[in-house]
Amino acid sequence: MTTVPVLDPELAARLKRTPDGLVCAVVQQYDTREVLMVAWMSDEALARTLTTREATYWSRSRQELWIKGATSGHTQAVHEVRLDCDGDTLLVLVDQQGAACHTGDRTCFDADVLLGADVAR
Amino acid sequence: MTTVPVLDPELAARLKRTPDGLVCAVVQQYDTREVLMVAWMSDEALARTLTTREATYWSRSRQELWIKGATSGHTQAVHEVRLDCDGDTLLVLVDQQGAACHTGDRTCFDADVLLGADVAR
Repeated sequence: MTTVPVLDPELAARLKRTPDGLVCAVVQQYDTREVLMVAWMSDEALARTLTTREATYWSRSRQELWIKGATSGHTQAVHEVRLDCDGDTLLVLVDQQGAACHTGDRTCFDADVLLGADVAR
Repeated sequence: MTTVPVLDPELAARLKRTPDGLVCAVVQQYDTREVLMVAWMSDEALARTLTTREATYWSRSRQELWIKGATSGHTQAVHEVRLDCDGDTLLVLVDQQGAACHTGDRTCFDADVLLGADVAR
């Protein structure tokens, strides 16, 4: 791709970003409704996600754009993107190929249960 | 309540907090799997949530503990709490009474669709 997607200015004006210019993205499997992971998007990551329908984030650890699955093959085809009432969080509904988590788990929330359902009121 | 719940030290050591000492909490309806909202928890908010099973957050705007529904009646009975692979995000499964969103919508993601499902690949 030789052109950089630019976010619609009307949408850009509605985003409330962290001091480092990011919005939180909750990523959910579109059919099973599993919450897969949480990541962060810059304006460019969001513009690319909306334009290409390939989920694209900003890697805070690597400080670079990150097309999910570009290395692992575990891509996310984007079905739907919603913005929350505060303008600071996105809900991204995707079709996840393989594992969402870098550990190989299906979701990033599979491994560590702090409070179980079995004693729920 | 006269005693302040304290977070288990082993758990506290595993959390990766923002510079202001918070972890992100994704809140999901336990049965329908709707993502209701995203909020933030301090150590005390998490300890209270785990102890009381009443979802409790840290309000960044008011800079105070916030028992969800204490004012509105729209409480969240906590069924399950999970920590993600990075230790910086919680998934909180709840039974939401009424609207999760302060606008009166069921979820904070109901109103603003940036990219629709109807043209999904």
